[in-house]
Amino acid sequence: MNGADSLCDTLLANNVDVCFANPGTSEMHFVAALDKKPQMRCVLGLFEGVVTGAADGYARMADKPAATLLHLGPGLANGLANLHNARRAHTPIVNIVGDHATYHLQHDAPLTTDIESLARPMSQWVRRIQSAADVSAAAAAAVAASHGGQGGVATLILPADAAWTQAPADIQRATLPSPTHVDPDALRQASEALQNGRKTVILLSGKALRSKALETASRIAARTGARLLAQQSNGRVERGAGRVMIDRVPYNVDLAVKTFADTEQLILIGAKTPVAFFAYPGKPGVMTPPTCQSIALTRPTDDLTEALEALADAVGARQSAATVATKTDAGELPTGPLTAAAIIQAIGALSPENAILCDESVSSGRDSFKSTFGAAPHDFLQITGGAIGIGLPLATGAAVACPNRKVILMQADGSGMYTLQALWTQAREQLDVVTVIFANRSYAILHHELKMVGAGEPGHNARRMLDLDHPAFNWVLMANAAGVEAAQAVDAKSFVDLLRSALSRKGPFLIEALI
Amino acid sequence: MNGADSLCDTLLANNVDVCFANPGTSEMHFVAALDKKPQMRCVLGLFEGVVTGAADGYARMADKPAATLLHLGPGLANGLANLHNARRAHTPIVNIVGDHATYHLQHDAPLTTDIESLARPMSQWVRRIQSAADVSAAAAAAVAASHGGQGGVATLILPADAAWTQAPADIQRATLPSPTHVDPDALRQASEALQNGRKTVILLSGKALRSKALETASRIAARTGARLLAQQSNGRVERGAGRVMIDRVPYNVDLAVKTFADTEQLILIGAKTPVAFFAYPGKPGVMTPPTCQSIALTRPTDDLTEALEALADAVGARQSAATVATKTDAGELPTGPLTAAAIIQAIGALSPENAILCDESVSSGRDSFKSTFGAAPHDFLQITGGAIGIGLPLATGAAVACPNRKVILMQADGSGMYTLQALWTQAREQLDVVTVIFANRSYAILHHELKMVGAGEPGHNARRMLDLDHPAFNWVLMANAAGVEAAQAVDAKSFVDLLRSALSRKGPFLIEALI
Repeated sequence: MNGADSLCDTLLANNVDVCFANPGTSEMHFVAALDKKPQMRCVLGLFEGVVTGAADGYARMADKPAATLLHLGPGLANGLANLHNARRAHTPIVNIVGDHATYHLQHDAPLTTDIESLARPMSQWVRRIQSAADVSAAAAAAVAASHGGQGGVATLILPADAAWTQAPADIQRATLPSPTHVDPDALRQASEALQNGRKTVILLSGKALRSKALETASRIAARTGARLLAQQSNGRVERGAGRVMIDRVPYNVDLAVKTFADTEQLILIGAKTPVAFFAYPGKPGVMTPPTCQSIALTRPTDDLTEALEALADAVGARQSAATVATKTDAGELPTGPLTAAAIIQAIGALSPENAILCDESVSSGRDSFKSTFGAAPHDFLQITGGAIGIGLPLATGAAVACPNRKVILMQADGSGMYTLQALWTQAREQLDVVTVIFANRSYAILHHELKMVGAGEPGHNARRMLDLDHPAFNWVLMANAAGVEAAQAVDAKSFVDLLRSALSRKGPFLIEALI
Repeated sequence: MNGADSLCDTLLANNVDVCFANPGTSEMHFVAALDKKPQMRCVLGLFEGVVTGAADGYARMADKPAATLLHLGPGLANGLANLHNARRAHTPIVNIVGDHATYHLQHDAPLTTDIESLARPMSQWVRRIQSAADVSAAAAAAVAASHGGQGGVATLILPADAAWTQAPADIQRATLPSPTHVDPDALRQASEALQNGRKTVILLSGKALRSKALETASRIAARTGARLLAQQSNGRVERGAGRVMIDRVPYNVDLAVKTFADTEQLILIGAKTPVAFFAYPGKPGVMTPPTCQSIALTRPTDDLTEALEALADAVGARQSAATVATKTDAGELPTGPLTAAAIIQAIGALSPENAILCDESVSSGRDSFKSTFGAAPHDFLQITGGAIGIGLPLATGAAVACPNRKVILMQADGSGMYTLQALWTQAREQLDVVTVIFANRSYAILHHELKMVGAGEPGHNARRMLDLDHPAFNWVLMANAAGVEAAQAVDAKSFVDLLRSALSRKGPFLIEALI
């Protein structure tokens, strides 16, 4: 076997059996290796942002990494924005980047770049394979590294000569890091804080937002009077009717500050101190009051579910009742003109049990989280790093991971434009995704921000940078171009009808909702 | 005025009056500043790869930089692949990247990244603005830096607080670097080499490929018996009927080696020693024989036209005749089935005087350069760094720079998928671009490369990574979605008819050529 075979075998031996790929010439030996292994599922993306975003969506749902396959520095560069989102979601990804043969780098051939410099900002681990003999150890280390901390992007650089040279046949197994147990001092501190009568928020993210952990958290809240909140951005929340109802920190700075106005103590569980998404003149960067005491219950390597259980025991909350959401009445469907609120109401009412709701509706869907508390039990995946263009790939990857679950994507039109090639992958793989485009035909969020700057009414140049009309992009034609059936909704009734129809069948469908 | 106004005024004062933009919240003050200046032309790209690729195409034709406007690290990341091509084309670009307010970086808000680490591999100059008072000096330095060496990407990082803080009113002028004169020793060496009777190739790139410089080079070749060649990848060549006929170094390694097989001396003028695009087991990395002596006539800062004139004087070639191409007979039009060769033949015969031919036809169009020697005088722009996805943006930017010239883009379908959002910008700006999609519905180059690997017939996984069918992407619907008229050509006759029609009118048109 050569190094490429060794890489493929090591991935499979370590339970990495999906490869989202956009290969090039320097990766041909790896393509040939993948071609010998039908047990590896290869999913082509026609742009690298699709590849990395799909790997993110896949791993958020599969709880194990997929591999990517990217072509040198420029291929990696095209995938970086969604790797950034994956980094913020703590998603494990084995991010394989082909490079020139080691001895060819000296010639500075046209595609040569500093891959490490590009990879580091979005990766929690970067390693360049040294030789064919190094491939299996490096690949096993990459799988382990992707599970390090809360999870993240492990970038493995594969020189072409390491791929094509004869390699030893022994295949390494990854030693996955064991989660650490909660620090007793932190546990005592959090437990005391929860019982000292001060106004306390428990802020959760990561695996603390899975349903079992959330139930424990809710019992703690019920017992101690603390308030539960989820971070503003989270990789995955298990929620819906019958599950714990938890709100997020608002995106808007003023609202976030108000949310924490009377908070005296903040207990962080898999979450970070809430900060403003952007700085604004005269507004604070940290959303909690300066006097608020912050207690990190967990470290990145801790088992969050276990930490919550230990905390529940410490405050005597095991028997307390969790607060769960009640089911939305599916009879309450929107009528009249089509608005963002109407879309979300309809999705909340009609989404089937066990659906995966993906959200990149940006300003149009600021209420998408709140308004779907009572939807049938589902997973909620959202953009985590602010790098727009994750929605279509994220839904694609989630659907690859969960072929028997319906994926519903709430997608703003501006951000959808970034990675619309994902629709082709949905058609190719016949993925069960309903995409809803919130077509307001502008960067609505930026119009709002421009107002905040005090620039007055936008003039010619501002409108030309913030409006997406003249011409309006036609999403139905775009979807059809990629082989995805699609239709336009012009009012609430036609939207409901299209959504019902799309949900009743398998395979990709896109609804362009004119709002 | 604030820092954002200072930036806008400094760009305008230094003759940078086009801004290709995809702004975000942190850039709103700059958007407000641009909005006050109608003399700045703001062109929106719906994805950053469009923005940077268009800035490349613009500057290749305008011989001066455009500004870009990108949103933090992820926005820059999305634009990096085409900045990589610009770097290889030595295109001057003032690449403006917004960042968080300086004091906000400590909070590691979701969009925070190491922008410098991302920018450096594709930039010849990177500077972070320190304060509002630093904006004008930094912007002027960026303009100057973009003209440094043979030209390149100057990345200017604009913190939001530098943009919104009050700034001094004095606007700095850039001191553009003066081209240096050819080194007398290098000149003597080259001149002696050309007269010592050995087999010599003069390899040209950069501004040595403009028509006047090429004429001088051709006279030198005629006088000395040296062979002229252009680098494999070049930013811009002025060529066509009545201009100097110069071939490129072949892309294929075996052909390139054969081209230089008997070469004893290589004189480099704005060019680099030719190397293989990729390494292949057992094949050389450098295309010239090991015994070939290499003489660099010019340094990156030298005036190449002047250097060629000095060389012509030194070898007594001023009166020699240049070899020019004769006009293709426009009566010779292809018939029968539609092939890549037929498309190129038709374009060569029908492209109007002063057209701009852009080429990202990849494997389908390997002969596009050779086959258009005799087209009406035109500029030829090609992908330079191997980062596919430059074609549609490049044509877009060239059309912005040259509103009175017809732009014809030869675009492979696989690479076209990367930045298809550029079609919307063409529609929005009503740019005079005819896009010809070579629709072979596969990564044909990779099928070829897979064969070279000796992997035999591609199996399931390989076909799923190299074929673009199932479903075939419909480029006519895609163009229509973006507001661009389009039609499909199924044979040579229908292609010729569509091309004639598209060339006879103004505005964007796309032909999906099924080959």
